[in-house]
Amino acid sequence: MEEQTLLYEGKAKRVYATDQEGIVRIQYKDSATAYNGEKKAEIAGKGRLNNEITSLLFLKLSEAGIQSHFIKKISETEQLVKQVKIIPLEVVVRNYAAGSFSKRLGVEEGEKLRRSIVEFYLKDDLLGDPLITDDHVDVLNLATEEEVAELKAAALKINQVLGGFFAEIGVRLIDFKLEFGKDGDGSILLADEISPDTCRLWDMKTQQKLDKDVFRRDLGNLTDAYETILTRLGGQLHV
Amino acid sequence: MEEQTLLYEGKAKRVYATDQEGIVRIQYKDSATAYNGEKKAEIAGKGRLNNEITSLLFLKLSEAGIQSHFIKKISETEQLVKQVKIIPLEVVVRNYAAGSFSKRLGVEEGEKLRRSIVEFYLKDDLLGDPLITDDHVDVLNLATEEEVAELKAAALKINQVLGGFFAEIGVRLIDFKLEFGKDGDGSILLADEISPDTCRLWDMKTQQKLDKDVFRRDLGNLTDAYETILTRLGGQLHV
Repeated sequence: MEEQTLLYEGKAKRVYATDQEGIVRIQYKDSATAYNGEKKAEIAGKGRLNNEITSLLFLKLSEAGIQSHFIKKISETEQLVKQVKIIPLEVVVRNYAAGSFSKRLGVEEGEKLRRSIVEFYLKDDLLGDPLITDDHVDVLNLATEEEVAELKAAALKINQVLGGFFAEIGVRLIDFKLEFGKDGDGSILLADEISPDTCRLWDMKTQQKLDKDVFRRDLGNLTDAYETILTRLGGQLHV
Repeated sequence: MEEQTLLYEGKAKRVYATDQEGIVRIQYKDSATAYNGEKKAEIAGKGRLNNEITSLLFLKLSEAGIQSHFIKKISETEQLVKQVKIIPLEVVVRNYAAGSFSKRLGVEEGEKLRRSIVEFYLKDDLLGDPLITDDHVDVLNLATEEEVAELKAAALKINQVLGGFFAEIGVRLIDFKLEFGKDGDGSILLADEISPDTCRLWDMKTQQKLDKDVFRRDLGNLTDAYETILTRLGGQLHV
């Protein structure tokens, strides 16, 4: 493949231009980061696993009627996606208390919330991605009221479908982070990735963590956990 | 006055029982605290000033049709109020960016917000009074959806009236914190205090800060600033 322009490099992915207008190539890296980049490591195979899992989940979501930027997987660590302008919001859905929710609000990890909730975080590494309210989204001009309603509805629908996929394979979807972007027409499209980097996934029987908390909290081998998710989802391990 | 039972001691006030059912006595202390109690000082006269200013503002609000727990001032540092069960939310109204809003969201202090907004903070010193969303208020059972709507509407109405009082005396109401409580009937009543401890007040001409930021940020003499507010509001200095 000839050299292509690097459009953006994030903590876990690189985005390259392609010869096709409106289509970009995403390359998943082996980098693992946590706590806003304070903790870092290179973990061989992580990029491949997240590319596989994300591709599989975006395909499954598409079959369930939820469109995303995903077009197709083109290699072990790469996929083609529609180019979108990312809305600078991390959209978090929580079904159970965990992570920052538990810490900030004093609720024990694993406690089921009375209902699923959607939170917005301002995507800004320098500010540490702070939690923001709907009013903040409005006065900071991050999205319109209609877009906020659309993002929340989409996030909750994705939660329902995704929660179903994971329940079928004995995994509890504790919480997850989504990002959305706008395509050339201004339509809002699910973007970024859905993987154990962006979801908290607990084994329903053992409560074992099968997500990035394994890395964040030094709970064992990250690739083992991610491979468990991939194989249970029906994906192939290329070993 | 005979010894009365101390019901509660906060950072800036003590609450005592009285012989009358449903009525308590609030005593304003000279303590100044900031940053969740990390910075502390005793400032002679502060209790008197906040009692005077709060009493004056609650009276003015009452004349404007906004009821509060306030009954009457009974001494330089004390007032009688209706006993309420405090709702564990700090209700913050912001008209201009300042303080934690500016710091968390990267907006310059003094920038006018496109519209006034209401924020909720969980009243919990151990957790550092974290910002919470309406969904958090709901899933943590802090208030019902109807109560949230009532609190927001009340806060914005108080903002309008209070902003008017301050504009008349050449002071810009940047932001302020309210607390509400429920009386015996379950009615929601404005409670706590409204003073330069709980409001950001800037002189309209000079932009001089006439509030607790003088103490928080070591900008000069706190009592001078509070006395300016009291005298401009038409209150008497008892020197």
